[in-house]
Amino acid sequence: MAPSPSGQLLIGVDLGGTKILARAVDPATGKAQGRVKHVTPAGPAAVLDALVDTITKVDGWSEAAGVGIGVPGFVDRHGVVAKCPNIEGWDEPVAVAAELTERLGKPVVVANDVNCGVVAEHRLGAGRGQTNLLAVFVGTGVGGGVVINDTLAVGDRGMAGEIGHVTVEPGGRPCGCGGFGHLETYAGRAGIDREARRRAETGGTELLVELAGDGPIKSRHLARGLRDGDPTTVELLAEAADALALVIGNAAALLDLPRVVLGGGVVDKLGQPFLDQIAASDRFGGFGPDFVELVAADRIDDAGAIGAAVLAADQLVGVSI
Amino acid sequence: MAPSPSGQLLIGVDLGGTKILARAVDPATGKAQGRVKHVTPAGPAAVLDALVDTITKVDGWSEAAGVGIGVPGFVDRHGVVAKCPNIEGWDEPVAVAAELTERLGKPVVVANDVNCGVVAEHRLGAGRGQTNLLAVFVGTGVGGGVVINDTLAVGDRGMAGEIGHVTVEPGGRPCGCGGFGHLETYAGRAGIDREARRRAETGGTELLVELAGDGPIKSRHLARGLRDGDPTTVELLAEAADALALVIGNAAALLDLPRVVLGGGVVDKLGQPFLDQIAASDRFGGFGPDFVELVAADRIDDAGAIGAAVLAADQLVGVSI
Repeated sequence: MAPSPSGQLLIGVDLGGTKILARAVDPATGKAQGRVKHVTPAGPAAVLDALVDTITKVDGWSEAAGVGIGVPGFVDRHGVVAKCPNIEGWDEPVAVAAELTERLGKPVVVANDVNCGVVAEHRLGAGRGQTNLLAVFVGTGVGGGVVINDTLAVGDRGMAGEIGHVTVEPGGRPCGCGGFGHLETYAGRAGIDREARRRAETGGTELLVELAGDGPIKSRHLARGLRDGDPTTVELLAEAADALALVIGNAAALLDLPRVVLGGGVVDKLGQPFLDQIAASDRFGGFGPDFVELVAADRIDDAGAIGAAVLAADQLVGVSI
Repeated sequence: MAPSPSGQLLIGVDLGGTKILARAVDPATGKAQGRVKHVTPAGPAAVLDALVDTITKVDGWSEAAGVGIGVPGFVDRHGVVAKCPNIEGWDEPVAVAAELTERLGKPVVVANDVNCGVVAEHRLGAGRGQTNLLAVFVGTGVGGGVVINDTLAVGDRGMAGEIGHVTVEPGGRPCGCGGFGHLETYAGRAGIDREARRRAETGGTELLVELAGDGPIKSRHLARGLRDGDPTTVELLAEAADALALVIGNAAALLDLPRVVLGGGVVDKLGQPFLDQIAASDRFGGFGPDFVELVAADRIDDAGAIGAAVLAADQLVGVSI
């Protein structure tokens, strides 16, 4: 797909569970101007009002060719958002793209927020220049996105890239989605948290639980446990690295990927040693670690908003996505 | 991608280890005319001569807009064929597309033969109408192909779709590629053959080995063993179904696939009960069997040659693949 001509402007929006961020973006360069924030209200009707308000206040709105919005939910190719578990009261499908296109008078493209982050990494970050790319974000859960032939894979139900729900161990740890043994139960922070507490109660060390206190176990607690050589931390992170190695290696074999980008809070905090641990795992899938290079994400500022603008620009030049 | 206009003609070629088959194909309908066969000679130079000879003899050659060739090896996006293990003496990369385009005076597109079969299933067979599709062919080995956003995933090294080398069991059965525990060691006929002989020597039943005699265990032997309730056959096919269920379910989750097409000798012979067994496996990966429909391939006649012509037509209308 040809890059957009430089100088074009699109509004890119990152709709999060707590705040809305909008910027005016040149999709050819990723350069952003303007910045408007808004608290995310409850319920889709109020969210749509807040989006209109936020978008039209961005410096650059009047010249903008269109709008891209990343949302924390599943989005089909018509911009219908099935539901947003992190936004209170958003339990039913809403035709966000159609409604906002009408209200704003400019074309609006809506996509999953993680996928917008993947587009930012692909076009402007650590995946730049790759025709085919997988990006994996390891945070509370594990999300990701796939680019094939320079085009984002969206999937029939807007669910492409759900690498956190790839099964690592049939019948293994229970997953929030109802499945068992999924990648994110081993590599996501929430899965590690549950397992750390279980082990603390059944003879494992208690450092992580003590560090977390009443709150969730955070990436910095994992980094501290590792630094201190806490046995449970070391075990849990080895299992996380093994699970990531199996799934990433397998995806690289299936899709012939020369590079996979890894980001998210856990990877950002643990850094290159964690990438090296994944590459060295004896559970690495597919054709092994020589077939695919693991690279840390670029941690682009406002990646969600910028990726949403880039994705919208791609679609608005008439390329079918 | 827009389908080709009906009435256009392309030569589609299936280059196999033993024979070359060429047909003139209307890529919009898949309707084929003409049919020329040629024995596959040894060495790439002789193969190229034979391809020119075969292609130019097909009824329809003079009107043809171009040529698509499926080859049994890895092909990059420039039509360079790395090597063809099944063609004697083809151990070095050959720029097949460039050389034949020059010799034939018409544009030539070259792709992996399994991928051509996937394109045929996607456009004309059991995957018709799907935007995103995985096809899996279970024969001596296990091959496949992936279509995303209506476009074949080729991969950077021409290796996309190598689902047979997805790891099912880290450290498991040795694979011909040097890896361990890959899908095709559990589900491919060669892997089942090796394991059946190993078990026959270590206390397992001997029916499959007896049926095969001096030759390899064939799909019909597996069907017979199953019908007779031979314990080793039942076990090996349950393991094959489990391995396919894990890998197919995982691919469906990663790429959000509503349908996966299964074909190849083993699936053709064992039929719907084998697909049902895969769907019922408690090792089904990702979001489980409700998320993805398993459908038998259409077994299109001359699928390789026809798929090659369809793929060439796509590329020749200027769509980048």
